[in-house]
Amino acid sequence: MSKPLWHAEGRDVDERAMRFMAGEDARLDAELLPFDIIATRAHVRGLGRIGALAGEDVDKLVRALDEIARDVESGGLVMSGTFEDGHSAIEAWLTDRLGEAGKRVHLGRSRNDQVLIATRLYCLDRIGRLRAAAVESGRAALRRARENEHTLMPGFTHLQRAVPSSVGLWMGSFAESFADDAELLALTASWMDASPLGVAAGYGVNLPLDRDGVAYELGLVRLHVNPMHAQATRGKLEHQALASAWQVMQTVRRLSWDLVLFATAEFGFVTLPDGATTGSSIMPNKRNPDLAELLRAAPSVVGGCMAELQQLLSLPSGYHRDLQGAKPPLIRGLRVAIDAVGLVPWLIDGLAFDAERMRGACDPAMLATDRAVELAAGGVAFRDAYKQVAESLGELADRDPAESLRARVSPGATADLRLDEIGARLDSFAG
Amino acid sequence: MSKPLWHAEGRDVDERAMRFMAGEDARLDAELLPFDIIATRAHVRGLGRIGALAGEDVDKLVRALDEIARDVESGGLVMSGTFEDGHSAIEAWLTDRLGEAGKRVHLGRSRNDQVLIATRLYCLDRIGRLRAAAVESGRAALRRARENEHTLMPGFTHLQRAVPSSVGLWMGSFAESFADDAELLALTASWMDASPLGVAAGYGVNLPLDRDGVAYELGLVRLHVNPMHAQATRGKLEHQALASAWQVMQTVRRLSWDLVLFATAEFGFVTLPDGATTGSSIMPNKRNPDLAELLRAAPSVVGGCMAELQQLLSLPSGYHRDLQGAKPPLIRGLRVAIDAVGLVPWLIDGLAFDAERMRGACDPAMLATDRAVELAAGGVAFRDAYKQVAESLGELADRDPAESLRARVSPGATADLRLDEIGARLDSFAG
Amino acid sequence: MSKPLWHAEGRDVDERAMRFMAGEDARLDAELLPFDIIATRAHVRGLGRIGALAGEDVDKLVRALDEIARDVESGGLVMSGTFEDGHSAIEAWLTDRLGEAGKRVHLGRSRNDQVLIATRLYCLDRIGRLRAAAVESGRAALRRARENEHTLMPGFTHLQRAVPSSVGLWMGSFAESFADDAELLALTASWMDASPLGVAAGYGVNLPLDRDGVAYELGLVRLHVNPMHAQATRGKLEHQALASAWQVMQTVRRLSWDLVLFATAEFGFVTLPDGATTGSSIMPNKRNPDLAELLRAAPSVVGGCMAELQQLLSLPSGYHRDLQGAKPPLIRGLRVAIDAVGLVPWLIDGLAFDAERMRGACDPAMLATDRAVELAAGGVAFRDAYKQVAESLGELADRDPAESLRARVSPGATADLRLDEIGARLDSFAG
Amino acid sequence: MSKPLWHAEGRDVDERAMRFMAGEDARLDAELLPFDIIATRAHVRGLGRIGALAGEDVDKLVRALDEIARDVESGGLVMSGTFEDGHSAIEAWLTDRLGEAGKRVHLGRSRNDQVLIATRLYCLDRIGRLRAAAVESGRAALRRARENEHTLMPGFTHLQRAVPSSVGLWMGSFAESFADDAELLALTASWMDASPLGVAAGYGVNLPLDRDGVAYELGLVRLHVNPMHAQATRGKLEHQALASAWQVMQTVRRLSWDLVLFATAEFGFVTLPDGATTGSSIMPNKRNPDLAELLRAAPSVVGGCMAELQQLLSLPSGYHRDLQGAKPPLIRGLRVAIDAVGLVPWLIDGLAFDAERMRGACDPAMLATDRAVELAAGGVAFRDAYKQVAESLGELADRDPAESLRARVSPGATADLRLDEIGARLDSFAG
Repeated sequence: MSKPLWHAEGRDVDERAMRFMAGEDARLDAELLPFDIIATRAHVRGLGRIGALAGEDVDKLVRALDEIARDVESGGLVMSGTFEDGHSAIEAWLTDRLGEAGKRVHLGRSRNDQVLIATRLYCLDRIGRLRAAAVESGRAALRRARENEHTLMPGFTHLQRAVPSSVGLWMGSFAESFADDAELLALTASWMDASPLGVAAGYGVNLPLDRDGVAYELGLVRLHVNPMHAQATRGKLEHQALASAWQVMQTVRRLSWDLVLFATAEFGFVTLPDGATTGSSIMPNKRNPDLAELLRAAPSVVGGCMAELQQLLSLPSGYHRDLQGAKPPLIRGLRVAIDAVGLVPWLIDGLAFDAERMRGACDPAMLATDRAVELAAGGVAFRDAYKQVAESLGELADRDPAESLRARVSPGATADLRLDEIGARLDSFAG
Repeated sequence: MSKPLWHAEGRDVDERAMRFMAGEDARLDAELLPFDIIATRAHVRGLGRIGALAGEDVDKLVRALDEIARDVESGGLVMSGTFEDGHSAIEAWLTDRLGEAGKRVHLGRSRNDQVLIATRLYCLDRIGRLRAAAVESGRAALRRARENEHTLMPGFTHLQRAVPSSVGLWMGSFAESFADDAELLALTASWMDASPLGVAAGYGVNLPLDRDGVAYELGLVRLHVNPMHAQATRGKLEHQALASAWQVMQTVRRLSWDLVLFATAEFGFVTLPDGATTGSSIMPNKRNPDLAELLRAAPSVVGGCMAELQQLLSLPSGYHRDLQGAKPPLIRGLRVAIDAVGLVPWLIDGLAFDAERMRGACDPAMLATDRAVELAAGGVAFRDAYKQVAESLGELADRDPAESLRARVSPGATADLRLDEIGARLDSFAG
Repeated sequence: MSKPLWHAEGRDVDERAMRFMAGEDARLDAELLPFDIIATRAHVRGLGRIGALAGEDVDKLVRALDEIARDVESGGLVMSGTFEDGHSAIEAWLTDRLGEAGKRVHLGRSRNDQVLIATRLYCLDRIGRLRAAAVESGRAALRRARENEHTLMPGFTHLQRAVPSSVGLWMGSFAESFADDAELLALTASWMDASPLGVAAGYGVNLPLDRDGVAYELGLVRLHVNPMHAQATRGKLEHQALASAWQVMQTVRRLSWDLVLFATAEFGFVTLPDGATTGSSIMPNKRNPDLAELLRAAPSVVGGCMAELQQLLSLPSGYHRDLQGAKPPLIRGLRVAIDAVGLVPWLIDGLAFDAERMRGACDPAMLATDRAVELAAGGVAFRDAYKQVAESLGELADRDPAESLRARVSPGATADLRLDEIGARLDSFAG
Repeated sequence: MSKPLWHAEGRDVDERAMRFMAGEDARLDAELLPFDIIATRAHVRGLGRIGALAGEDVDKLVRALDEIARDVESGGLVMSGTFEDGHSAIEAWLTDRLGEAGKRVHLGRSRNDQVLIATRLYCLDRIGRLRAAAVESGRAALRRARENEHTLMPGFTHLQRAVPSSVGLWMGSFAESFADDAELLALTASWMDASPLGVAAGYGVNLPLDRDGVAYELGLVRLHVNPMHAQATRGKLEHQALASAWQVMQTVRRLSWDLVLFATAEFGFVTLPDGATTGSSIMPNKRNPDLAELLRAAPSVVGGCMAELQQLLSLPSGYHRDLQGAKPPLIRGLRVAIDAVGLVPWLIDGLAFDAERMRGACDPAMLATDRAVELAAGGVAFRDAYKQVAESLGELADRDPAESLRARVSPGATADLRLDEIGARLDSFAG
């Protein structure tokens, strides 16, 4: 590993301790690296504007950073364990290309605010991706809702057959859930849309940094003004990023549970796409809903990451090395969420519904509520209507469950699903 | 306990099971009750508008509900264990007063959407209170920041003395942190500002309910349209309510840690108000910072509540009785948060700072960074500047730490704290 | 509230802060109180043995403590909010009865070790109860396994029908699971079977306390020797108590999931006892498995309590008031677990199995594995046997699923369930 | 990737889904692989004993497995992404070497019980390593306790100076804590010391497997008898493995907190070894306690892993693919714990104590408790003694804090640390 900046002869860090301290940094910093480069470029330009870097140096550094960004993207440059962290890698690569000038990028900032800004930009990027995946998932659900708007299926409460429902209502519920999730992701992004760059190690720096200009170049709408607070956002922003990701994963979990259940021999409402199932190594008769099961499992990762963060963050003000521990849960949680939600549109598109089986599961007794409401609307007290119907369930045999769908006219119910309204909301978070 | 609505002769629920199932419902429903009454009133009026209730009945019910609301507030009516839940209590009280008419309130809704709307209104109310408490806490911190804007104190990283800092910077950091927290609470409130009322048990109802009108009367800006989704928001909204509360508790935790640490004999920077400390039962020589310690502990409750929710919510679509388990963590978490944050302004106002002690802790070596930056700004590569300073720390003895505060002119730093900007942001979330 | 021991004129704790600091202490200390009294009696006798209390005083105190214990049990004395905590209550009651002598019980101990020992005894008692409930649950499952040893039912993997199984195998699995859980509870109890009493505030005391004798009287096998360590067990022991409780709750969760699923119309394998189900407030056609659902939900409480504890416990050595926060998750988690597991034997005893329905769900294709194993045992490579069977599933139609049960002769499998062995293991933890 | 066993033409799994499903399996299975090979060898021998494999085949397979084990250890064979999982890798390597015979190892078992046994052996191995590391950490603490048995230092409660204490007491507390942790790890190992091998996919198999003999060869003392239960231990055993690891990490956390705090300029009691500290990238004046901070952070990983597991495990009986999700938290949690605890002995050995500074921090007022106890032992009611001392703290100035250490004679206290007893207990868990 290259010598760290603060290296002093004769005071070497123990190698095993060094390895423990590095942890997964190299692997994780690879994800942050592109954002670190972008932020470094903006910092360099900002130093130029206040005269702390000569214009010529700024130009050379910006060009070199652009090259490095391209090389990192193409795989020509790789963040490896030979560097202490991503920041050191960038400085080393710059110094390779530009000599002395390469070392100037560190002026006026600390690794503390460097990791803050790289994490911020990374979060915003990933939250954007997750929002887009949530919108696409919602749109897939909406397509299926429209195709099967009035297809009968049982509505369950307590997993007991309750009232007739429709595939339109069921699939529509995921469309609206993903819309809510996309909205929260958007709100979360707006909440963290602030630049911490320029706070150095949490106490500011004796240079007239153009923090506002740098924020503007990075596309951030405001500053995290107070340096100690900017420092203390570490972990806090990560928590809300994960809390938002948890929401969309929760929608995925409900969907996965439904699919696993409805794909059993006993329910038999749904067939999953072949590409989402696997065989058994010992039982040749089976196809297993592995993908749905793993999607159902995935929210646990996000939840575990939140718990990890929460336990980490019992600390006084100021930077502590503990905060490095905020990186793994953030990156792990967001990666799992993006991968999981990214598979959902394809999965939903590939579902086959067994309309006959679902209709067959709509017992006449499921029309009891309709009848009780009719009686109650006609003036019978609901409690009495309820008893009256409970005592004469047999009389419901003649009612058509499809009629029940048509009778549920309250907004959002089976006769008025308002899919366009949900679709418009999804569109509004697509951006 | 009064017989439940669904009671059938000879099929009584086992008493011990009943007790287990009731859990803490009676105690918790007492907190939800006022909101349940408000929602019931809006529901009754909505039934009136679609002709499902006679105008006369509507008037009687609304008047009775207003009375009940007053009696509940005054303590004249108490939600007790004799009722299965808050919903049953309201119906029983109405029937006591109005006979048959009292039973009509249940028309067109289910306990499912009744608890959804009561929880929604409760959440919005409590999030509002918590936001107000966060703003007041931020304002208190701002007051202290202004009073002590340039009071020297050490800035720490890794709990090691790093650079000179100021009470203004320190206290200002809490002001901005509380502003961020208040913003997230406001965003969370806007996210859940939607009415689930009118979805019955999650599949709609065969009545032309005026859901939009009811939402409007309740002050909610939109509908949760899809009944299955509205049902599935249970737990999800609670999670984000708690995630927002966690943020403000995290700010409180950092503050508490600082206070406990700075109140030690070894640091000695701060004296806590007498009213926030206790004595020892065995050591007559001590005053202990119990309140700060308990504030430091309180975020764990909110975090634990989130973990509890997350573990609960692995379920297929549709209502399950498990979801009753979302109530205790929500109510417990928000109550602890509101109580804790409510004490913060008073605690901050009562802090006494020991300016002399803090100034004495500002070692000359803490001016090394300033010097390194000066050299680097003058053209020396930062790495070289760093080494040069590290080798001549003794030369820093003549520098005045107060000068260091004045030199840190970058936005937000000690010479430009931008307290007014933070104050304006706090004001914008006060409403 | 009575004035605390450390009360000093003019330095009153703020009332709102006092209320926040008291938290739920009064309610929780009521559960610890009987153990606090027992420990106090042992402490008093110990003081007598070293001559720090006169024999006469010892006798009076012991008699008074016995009376108080009886009065607390009968409800004649109640731990109320007028006392700061349970310790103060005991001292006050003693002083009421004995005057000056009552105050002597505090000699040589601190509230710190007083709460440690009370919590220890409480934990051991509750873990014992939970162990007994786990054993009874396992025995109930074993009874049903024996009654239905060879009753056919499908075995599922991925919730897909896999191979024929039996009620004996299914119920037997819970018997062995509860045995494992009981064993862990027993191991946990043995792990914490040590007395912390006599460590005062964590640094020992200048008296020759007979710690070993006191431990012996309390039925504890060893000491937590080191006072700082004894202090630091707070939270640690609670965590393992909850981790053990989590195990038995996890068994309950799997059982509950099975019951909810098998009680659906679609599976129809099981009918729950009427006393464990409820009706719907809006759908007169339904019986809902509420108890099973709430048992499925209950493990979340224990998990949440562990997360709460974990987040609390990031502290330096020595007592901190934060540790008071270890009480609520401990007591809440254990109470829920004991209540939940206590209902399981009754629930299992009341299950009705639909043998015909279960047999009907055993498809011929589920015999494919048997056939593949036969081929493989006859020398065909398993991979090839697997393919051969997969291509001729139709040939399995003639096989009798009951034959499959008889053929699975490996230890523990359907033909050799070893229920007696499991029963013996349960007995060994019944203690 | 090689075609999976259950591969069927035209029903390929979608590639992106496949990648998501594989997750980190290849990387994680590399850790399990050695144990999978050992278990496979025992399984093969067992098949030989019941005549399901020819003796010749057994010999060839055992030899090949031994070679593979060596090649895996030497790095000659690598578990890579070209295999679906470790099980497929072993089968492929065997088939490469032995042709048809290689395929026979799959007879009579499923990937389900294969992963169960590999995980079991892995857990036992890692728990053993962690126990050894805990014992070594305890011994290091004990060495320092002995070297500095009577070195004065302040004892803190609420981080306030309370009573004089000693380095012997402080370091001894970690020795006993690590002994408790080692004991729990040993108990946990004994709890899970049971073989699940031979349960196939959770319903047994139609072969007379010699499960007991296989267990014996693997060094396991008993069977998990019931196949469904054996299957259901997935996640449960992992949870207790992590719960035990959490305990030792919690001891490490308390130690780390003490070190970070005592290494501040303000306390100044301890200097950390150079090899455990780093410099600052911007502040040349500092040495930071990074290792102690990262050790303080590491318990969060274990806690997060437990939360992840808890959230995963809400499932009916039988294998579900979700359970694959139990691997990452188990392996991640144990790896972090082993790495962290492994560094502790070295860290403790390298601590330098500043005896003068610590003695200087022992205020005379800290002798108040001693005085109050003396008065109380002399017959004054403790409450009165307390008040009397509180009002005359000045009189304590003449007392020698070292005398206070000598006066605390109760077992475990400063005058009777019982280090040998703690050492003996550590030894008993060293094995």
